[in-house]
Amino acid sequence: MSPQRKLINSVDNCVDEALCGLVRSSADLCMLQGHRVVIRSDLEHLRGKVALLSGGGSGHEPAHGAGGGAGLLSAAVAGGVFASPPPASILAAIMTLHQAGSSAVLLIVKNYTGDRLNFGLAAEQARNRGVVVDMVIVAEDCAFDTISKAGRRGLCGTIFIHKLAGAMADRGCSLDQIVVKMTQVLKAMGTLGVSLSPCSVPGCRPTFELPPGEMELGLGIHGEPGIKRSTVTSADEVVRMMIAHMTNPDSQACLPLNPGDSVVVCVNNLGGLSCLEMAVVTRAAVMCLESRGLMVVRVMSGSFMTSLEMAGMSLTLMVADEHILELFDVKTIAPAWPNLSRVCVSGRDYITVPPPTGPGAKDDTHCEGPLSTVMRKSLEHVCFTLLNKQEELNSLDRAAGDGDCGNTHAQAATAIQEWLQSHVVPGCPGKLLSVLAGLVQEKMGGSSGALYSLFLTAAASHVTEGQSNAAAWTAALHAGTEAMRRYGGADPGDRTMLDALCPAVDEFMKLNLAPPGGKLVALQAAVQKAAAGAESTRYLTARAGRASYIPAERVTLPDPGAVAVAAIFGAVLESLQGQD
Amino acid sequence: MSPQRKLINSVDNCVDEALCGLVRSSADLCMLQGHRVVIRSDLEHLRGKVALLSGGGSGHEPAHGAGGGAGLLSAAVAGGVFASPPPASILAAIMTLHQAGSSAVLLIVKNYTGDRLNFGLAAEQARNRGVVVDMVIVAEDCAFDTISKAGRRGLCGTIFIHKLAGAMADRGCSLDQIVVKMTQVLKAMGTLGVSLSPCSVPGCRPTFELPPGEMELGLGIHGEPGIKRSTVTSADEVVRMMIAHMTNPDSQACLPLNPGDSVVVCVNNLGGLSCLEMAVVTRAAVMCLESRGLMVVRVMSGSFMTSLEMAGMSLTLMVADEHILELFDVKTIAPAWPNLSRVCVSGRDYITVPPPTGPGAKDDTHCEGPLSTVMRKSLEHVCFTLLNKQEELNSLDRAAGDGDCGNTHAQAATAIQEWLQSHVVPGCPGKLLSVLAGLVQEKMGGSSGALYSLFLTAAASHVTEGQSNAAAWTAALHAGTEAMRRYGGADPGDRTMLDALCPAVDEFMKLNLAPPGGKLVALQAAVQKAAAGAESTRYLTARAGRASYIPAERVTLPDPGAVAVAAIFGAVLESLQGQD
Repeated sequence: MSPQRKLINSVDNCVDEALCGLVRSSADLCMLQGHRVVIRSDLEHLRGKVALLSGGGSGHEPAHGAGGGAGLLSAAVAGGVFASPPPASILAAIMTLHQAGSSAVLLIVKNYTGDRLNFGLAAEQARNRGVVVDMVIVAEDCAFDTISKAGRRGLCGTIFIHKLAGAMADRGCSLDQIVVKMTQVLKAMGTLGVSLSPCSVPGCRPTFELPPGEMELGLGIHGEPGIKRSTVTSADEVVRMMIAHMTNPDSQACLPLNPGDSVVVCVNNLGGLSCLEMAVVTRAAVMCLESRGLMVVRVMSGSFMTSLEMAGMSLTLMVADEHILELFDVKTIAPAWPNLSRVCVSGRDYITVPPPTGPGAKDDTHCEGPLSTVMRKSLEHVCFTLLNKQEELNSLDRAAGDGDCGNTHAQAATAIQEWLQSHVVPGCPGKLLSVLAGLVQEKMGGSSGALYSLFLTAAASHVTEGQSNAAAWTAALHAGTEAMRRYGGADPGDRTMLDALCPAVDEFMKLNLAPPGGKLVALQAAVQKAAAGAESTRYLTARAGRASYIPAERVTLPDPGAVAVAAIFGAVLESLQGQD
Repeated sequence: MSPQRKLINSVDNCVDEALCGLVRSSADLCMLQGHRVVIRSDLEHLRGKVALLSGGGSGHEPAHGAGGGAGLLSAAVAGGVFASPPPASILAAIMTLHQAGSSAVLLIVKNYTGDRLNFGLAAEQARNRGVVVDMVIVAEDCAFDTISKAGRRGLCGTIFIHKLAGAMADRGCSLDQIVVKMTQVLKAMGTLGVSLSPCSVPGCRPTFELPPGEMELGLGIHGEPGIKRSTVTSADEVVRMMIAHMTNPDSQACLPLNPGDSVVVCVNNLGGLSCLEMAVVTRAAVMCLESRGLMVVRVMSGSFMTSLEMAGMSLTLMVADEHILELFDVKTIAPAWPNLSRVCVSGRDYITVPPPTGPGAKDDTHCEGPLSTVMRKSLEHVCFTLLNKQEELNSLDRAAGDGDCGNTHAQAATAIQEWLQSHVVPGCPGKLLSVLAGLVQEKMGGSSGALYSLFLTAAASHVTEGQSNAAAWTAALHAGTEAMRRYGGADPGDRTMLDALCPAVDEFMKLNLAPPGGKLVALQAAVQKAAAGAESTRYLTARAGRASYIPAERVTLPDPGAVAVAAIFGAVLESLQGQD
């Protein structure tokens, strides 16, 4: 037995179960008893209107069944995977729509012999039973330059016919009006597909072989071979080539497009292409069409007519006048139809200008103040200390991380040194902290950079030029620490920089109670707490950060982040002591 | 260089181009200049309301950017593929929403360290600029039984938060109201994923290795390894196991579900699963939940939070009370949100009974009439003739087809013989033709069965008990031939049964003009035309049917289908001559 690679229950039941999954997920749809027919739940709304019946082989979901709903299809008949549905089920669907009071039934059929015959037979049988029936055959494939007796294949353009006919039927148009309009629409529509992989019918081998890095152009929706195989090139080039092929005047299947024409584009995922790639292709399609002087009025991009899990896409282009566009925009509740904008794609300005966010580091309008000198000295000493400790921190980090903790801190220190050389230190401590936050965010990088930046940013608003006493600094340190904990998700005891920071900040809280002249003593105590906290991480198990992925018994050195924090506190104290 | 398997232009540009593709296809969305931010075009509608900002790494499309639009997100920030977005872009988005007049900005963040830190940093920076900001962290992964310090990962449940918060914001709810509600919702939500394949970041190797036929349970949305690897079993079993795991009371990440609870289900395509498989899985999910006594109120099935092209899916379950359901149903125009039914999934009758289509063959209420005897004799002779010619027709078919033309006709003949043994032949010729159409459709099979059935069905309404003269029969033959041509797509000269049928029918047209008693002579002429037409196919090139795929020079025998038609006409004539 070959390995199962599909998430189904059995090859035999997958079609019936998929149809069941569809109607079970949408209360607007029902199954027709005894048939693979999905039909609208609100049949009473069809009274006096033309009903639309589509369908075909399974494996093209959501094209048929999920197209059921007001404004789109009235019902859809499913065959086996890639197989035409049996006439008896088509007839049952027609008769149900007739019994519901619809004035006529329009069959929308893709141009494949099996579908033509089976839908045709059911149509004739329905006529014999007094039902007014007509058929629109969709045949918009642009792959072949010469059109054979069998005609062009019906591909994803079918969903445009579903949509436009659905809108007309919903509005109460007559069968003849709809058929005439659809015949006109079909003349100005074309589709071409490309794929980077085959697909495989459940229980079967892939429909064709395609070496990695190659693509097949012009394939059908059942994995029928295409017209050309080549190396996968860029999305822009593939799209350009496809549109050139579709509009080649030497081809009998040419879709004539003239500059100034309005076109609706459908970029259809054949199944397995990622949404990211689909969006890249969609951009390419819009830009290619615009470069040819066309007005892109609407764009659909997604899975509409798939070939199981085939990693490919098709482009469908439809020339659209005002009337077609108006029909296209009519609302539908069918699950297969996406939310689409009703505004012309081409010609609009799609760039919004953000307000200036003024990164502090580039803001040179700071004024010095009484605190500028002491803050500059402290900063210089912090930078000097961190650069001195670069190797020690790297060495500690090698035990449990990637060994770059010292480098990261040195990057920040160097950036601050450079900034100090060319800037005045603002007298407002909060402004300085914001500047430092910006520098650290930009130059330090990694989680450490984000965490320091968070600390500094959250602290900044608590210390201003007018409010920079001990209480203000304490509030700032507290706010910074809290932000670190909140967004970083770590707590004291998790073997992170918080193990040095939190005990120090707790000690700082006592500053407010310190007797006059005793502030430096309290600060000294805080620095000692930071150092002790850093040392204590030697015995802690990492529960956050990169070190949490290393077995605890292998980590016997203190956490470098905590050691760095203790060193920063120490350096600030030393610089302040030097001031005295 | 390894072969390119993705349809993009370059690894470096794919994210920016994908975002461009999105905003170019939806006029309701814009790009923020200089940032990977998709933002609503109608910012004026945010005035006085809470704005919603989500985002994260790219590769999860359509989760973030395509979620932009009234009723859902106000903006979304994108990082590189599977990488957290930079704080500067998050801040730019926040400030743009603030400038547009929104009363506050809610950040919706998936619980990954990078996202927490970067969104947190931008939030703090925005607060410093006077913006009211809050954050909801989505962490609903049910994979791990023990919750680590880092907490549960944020997965597809994020889109439920987008939807519910979007509805509340749209209605003018306050930031606090939204945050309180979302915190409540998050407690009754869980997600688990499974995949049959890895995915690969553009320019990189696959995120993990998975042998064919194996699946990985409980993976993250960046291809992080899951919790268990096993053989792919049936869709039902996979879903059952997933739901059991999610609701396992021994797990710290258990989602408690009690019989009678109402749940909303999201079956999310991780990227490369076919829509057929998705529907099978959706059925399995609904049935499994119902079997546990739960009320499935809404089902979403599609691509909502992808991992590039990963062939897998995730299930998200959310317990929903009336209020949550009401919010869930609020309309949105965001491209990522599908058309969903607003009716409870469980408990409804989803089977529609079709009207009886009364296949003639099972309708035993026919009455005999004056024509019954002659029609029975003709039919018997036709069957006898076709069975006699079985080997001859097979032999002719072996030259250009699959050699079963005689068998196919013999099947039809046998079926008709059996029917004749147990049924009266209706006096109404049209009824007989309908019966034959049904028999042929059911028993003959293939294109021939469909074509004969089409002929008989289209012919049937033209000959009734009251109207069965030569003119009526001629009209019937003509209608049958026309239906064959219309739906079959072939014409005389294409080397098909039409090459015998059409000349004979043309000759029949003369019947109406035949002198009394000369009808049999005219019929004789028609039979000769059929035979000559069949013989002429020897020199024709096949342009339809299976023989059209064989080089013309290799086909030197007449077309077996045409020979069979000539034989049928001949047999009818012989039986009528025997009557005289």
